Amino acid sequence: MSLEDPVVITCAISGALANREQCPAIPYTPEEYAAEARRIVDEGGVHIHIHARTSAGVPSYEAADFTAIHDAIRAEVGDAAILNFSTGTVGVSVERRVAYLQACPPEVAALNMGSMNYAKYSARRKDFVFETVFPNPFGEIIALLKAMRELGIKPEHECFDLGHVGSLVPLLDMGLLEAPLHADFVLGVTGGVPATARNLAAMADNLPEGVDAHWGVIGISRVQWTLLAAALSLGGSVRVGLEDNLYLPDGTMARSNGELVGRARQMTLDAGRRPATVQEARALLGLRERAGAAA
Amino acid sequence: MSLEDPVVITCAISGALANREQCPAIPYTPEEYAAEARRIVDEGGVHIHIHARTSAGVPSYEAADFTAIHDAIRAEVGDAAILNFSTGTVGVSVERRVAYLQACPPEVAALNMGSMNYAKYSARRKDFVFETVFPNPFGEIIALLKAMRELGIKPEHECFDLGHVGSLVPLLDMGLLEAPLHADFVLGVTGGVPATARNLAAMADNLPEGVDAHWGVIGISRVQWTLLAAALSLGGSVRVGLEDNLYLPDGTMARSNGELVGRARQMTLDAGRRPATVQEARALLGLRERAGAAA
Amino acid sequence: MSLEDPVVITCAISGALANREQCPAIPYTPEEYAAEARRIVDEGGVHIHIHARTSAGVPSYEAADFTAIHDAIRAEVGDAAILNFSTGTVGVSVERRVAYLQACPPEVAALNMGSMNYAKYSARRKDFVFETVFPNPFGEIIALLKAMRELGIKPEHECFDLGHVGSLVPLLDMGLLEAPLHADFVLGVTGGVPATARNLAAMADNLPEGVDAHWGVIGISRVQWTLLAAALSLGGSVRVGLEDNLYLPDGTMARSNGELVGRARQMTLDAGRRPATVQEARALLGLRERAGAAA
Amino acid sequence: MSLEDPVVITCAISGALANREQCPAIPYTPEEYAAEARRIVDEGGVHIHIHARTSAGVPSYEAADFTAIHDAIRAEVGDAAILNFSTGTVGVSVERRVAYLQACPPEVAALNMGSMNYAKYSARRKDFVFETVFPNPFGEIIALLKAMRELGIKPEHECFDLGHVGSLVPLLDMGLLEAPLHADFVLGVTGGVPATARNLAAMADNLPEGVDAHWGVIGISRVQWTLLAAALSLGGSVRVGLEDNLYLPDGTMARSNGELVGRARQMTLDAGRRPATVQEARALLGLRERAGAAA
Ligand SMILES: [Zn+2]
Ligand SMILES: [Zn+2]
Ligand SMILES: [Zn+2]
Ligand SMILES: [Zn+2]
Repeated sequence: MSLEDPVVITCAISGALANREQCPAIPYTPEEYAAEARRIVDEGGVHIHIHARTSAGVPSYEAADFTAIHDAIRAEVGDAAILNFSTGTVGVSVERRVAYLQACPPEVAALNMGSMNYAKYSARRKDFVFETVFPNPFGEIIALLKAMRELGIKPEHECFDLGHVGSLVPLLDMGLLEAPLHADFVLGVTGGVPATARNLAAMADNLPEGVDAHWGVIGISRVQWTLLAAALSLGGSVRVGLEDNLYLPDGTMARSNGELVGRARQMTLDAGRRPATVQEARALLGLRERAGAAA
Repeated sequence: MSLEDPVVITCAISGALANREQCPAIPYTPEEYAAEARRIVDEGGVHIHIHARTSAGVPSYEAADFTAIHDAIRAEVGDAAILNFSTGTVGVSVERRVAYLQACPPEVAALNMGSMNYAKYSARRKDFVFETVFPNPFGEIIALLKAMRELGIKPEHECFDLGHVGSLVPLLDMGLLEAPLHADFVLGVTGGVPATARNLAAMADNLPEGVDAHWGVIGISRVQWTLLAAALSLGGSVRVGLEDNLYLPDGTMARSNGELVGRARQMTLDAGRRPATVQEARALLGLRERAGAAA
Repeated sequence: MSLEDPVVITCAISGALANREQCPAIPYTPEEYAAEARRIVDEGGVHIHIHARTSAGVPSYEAADFTAIHDAIRAEVGDAAILNFSTGTVGVSVERRVAYLQACPPEVAALNMGSMNYAKYSARRKDFVFETVFPNPFGEIIALLKAMRELGIKPEHECFDLGHVGSLVPLLDMGLLEAPLHADFVLGVTGGVPATARNLAAMADNLPEGVDAHWGVIGISRVQWTLLAAALSLGGSVRVGLEDNLYLPDGTMARSNGELVGRARQMTLDAGRRPATVQEARALLGLRERAGAAA
Repeated sequence: MSLEDPVVITCAISGALANREQCPAIPYTPEEYAAEARRIVDEGGVHIHIHARTSAGVPSYEAADFTAIHDAIRAEVGDAAILNFSTGTVGVSVERRVAYLQACPPEVAALNMGSMNYAKYSARRKDFVFETVFPNPFGEIIALLKAMRELGIKPEHECFDLGHVGSLVPLLDMGLLEAPLHADFVLGVTGGVPATARNLAAMADNLPEGVDAHWGVIGISRVQWTLLAAALSLGGSVRVGLEDNLYLPDGTMARSNGELVGRARQMTLDAGRRPATVQEARALLGLRERAGAAA
């Protein structure tokens, strides 16, 4: 990747943790997802990362919910966005996760590349708000990769530390991955790689040598905007969205995913780079072009 | 320095190389300098780097020209900006450079920290547009440092490569420097350090250990905006201005220095950081507060 | 830490995975541990990391075995080595681990700083030899830290990835740690940070700012010797020993831990550095000097 | 380059600055050069970097002296070493330097890739021992490259800072260089890149992307041995020799170049790497194999 490459602007439209009491813009129903997707596309986003919810807003791992949301978004934006399903969660079996991929195969599915402590610390309380082990053993990774390959789904390798990036190497050697790789580096989780520009560069530097790859940054909480500047200066792509961070750089709460995407788009331009069209994004991620695709 | 520090926005108001045929906004007369300084201050710039010109626009190393420009700016903006004189040039003796510092001591003066090839290459022509040796021997550096110390002028250490940063160490050991150091890293000159975010981090990492220091980035030509994103994500400060780059990120020519400063200010905010007030900038650079200082 | 600091040479005397069929030099009985400890000290090792075994060689977490081995070594080498107990294992409760620390408090105890995938991949077989989740949740880390503090034991922070180093920050903020920190960076486990010199530097760069710390490298398998060269050039300390790697750089199997330590000592000298005396090592690790200590 | 590559051990046999009063092992006559070359080859060195001297030991830029030394070495060691002539000096015209290359074209010639301050500072005296500008303008670099190309001589790019490495890019674009590039990174000169392992990695990281290249380290003065450890851990090759450093790691003066080479060879093996045979070295540097070559 280089600074000449266009920037794939991804939006994590909903997530599973926050709810509408915390941020009224979080979509619950398929119609709300579709309306947010429209705003994302209108502001320059070309890649939408989806966690499903029931229409009451409860996180869901049911194929029916994923399908309804997927189809509503596709109906609204056509081929103007790449759709991406989360597979990352604690306590939901691989089988259930594969089931919704089978029911409605998205173009891309996110894949957590390793295990880690996943915690949130409060400096004010001098204590952890929560802390858990986030287990993603190689066995599950391999099972998900095999399912994705059968279904023609491109894996997005979510890496929370250097070891997760390094874990691509044996999987490549086993023939489970196909270039170009698409990796996203998640910074800012306590237990994962600390959120600095230098560490982001280290993540990119650990991508397998001699294998074509595309990478972006996912910044959790308010350090996100600083990490966007870092990724843009390092030749990477970027993700924003209500899953990762509810606030604009000035600290006000976003009124929509589109508002966050618009800000990311402006930062991309200001850094002397260019947002990718959806066709360019599909090419960078190694996806087939879609028939009637239009930016 | 840390991401919590406010960002000192510097503007190189004029330079000596480009002229008004290339960019109509370049100031020539003291009045024009003052008007540009006003725009800079209004847009959030707090530190103005000055090369003198005669009123016809010819680069000048005469004390009278530096004084006239300095006084016109000061009359216009009061203490709302730190004023900074260039001392970097080829073929002008140290004595002449010291003479204008003595005639009108600015708060800060720029100081080139080493020798290098200084060139511009044209990929289109497959040849160098120009190439020269830019000599800044330690003897001259020491003479300028001694003059600045006598005059109460803070040196801004302009470093074009890692060796220039490393050259601070013997000068510190000789007792010629006082913390906090104020260093600017110049990237993008052929012959100097290549303009990448990783190299900018390496420059900062070479600052002397255990000595308080403030640093910023100076990006030459269009890669400047990408380097601003890098500096903001690494905890550094930034410089823009018509000396370094005539164009906005979208490729249109700037209509004033203020327009460039305004864009830098927006990028600072978008990266989750905060522009320094002039008082904060004076504190970061280790300058005395000025009597009637007002942001 | 700097290149001027002496190098603490640590030896992981036994480990729990390999057995005497694989390497006849692995000690089983307290007497054998003591004899190996003597060889370690004679060759320049000053810090011995211990996993207990029964006299039949079976890994043990019984206080009696730890105590017998500890006392045998102490009787043999006196204060000429810092003794260090492992607390890292899968499937042994925190209570049992604390029990042997209480029964016989060593000067230092190793502490795994996070969770991860822990695997071994065979490029020949194109498959994993084993793969598991190595869980070290914050809750267990905190419980072990509190026990160590009560017992006057210095924690050795074993970090397998950048996130593990970053996890020191909340623990410092909670007041659970005391400077100087003593961290060891473990490279070369599939699932953990890939074993490169650049990644070792990144580990060191992530140590908490402004807190005095000492660090060393632990390299797993044959890349160990290359990582020793890296650590020596970066200002770090080193660990060798039959737990980590059975082979000398030339590929022949070590006939004793002493042989491995002797090689590490020679590399230390060749890299222009100096092995620490046991007193220096105690000072670097923030340990009390012991009454009759002698190098 | 990778850690799997064999290590090219280069020896700078004589240099031009030190004399026999400082170190009795420095060769003056062609016979002495040949005897030292024999010791170098016997200890594992495969690449000999030569500054000529008159038989009285005075540095010489005369074709006759270069030729006599070259031929004496070749007569002694046959094809068992690559011979390399220095072209770096202050105050000797490009024409004179080209003249000795023409008279006796070596396989490789060193080429300084940029200008810099070149100084030596004494912390004891709190003053510079000497300081000068070392000018190597692009014009001279290009003239030397053209001469080398005509003569079938491989350039060794001696880079004293990141900007010197970056200067390869326009020269590549002009078609003046041929892959594989052969670069040596010189660390430890005051005015050039500070001598740290991290800076050595940064130098390697600035090699032109997508162009096959081989690199080594040249460490000036006693930090040399630490830099050897760094280069070995980063996948690079190494240079020792009486030009760079007169002392063994333990501080005793070397009794011959061979003694220094032997130490470098041992460090190479200890770091888990393998010294290159002369055939492998010629392949890595992109040289033609020589008829009767024998390691
Ligand atoms: Zn998600
Ligand atoms: Zn200037
Ligand atoms: Zn252990
Ligand atoms: Zn030389």
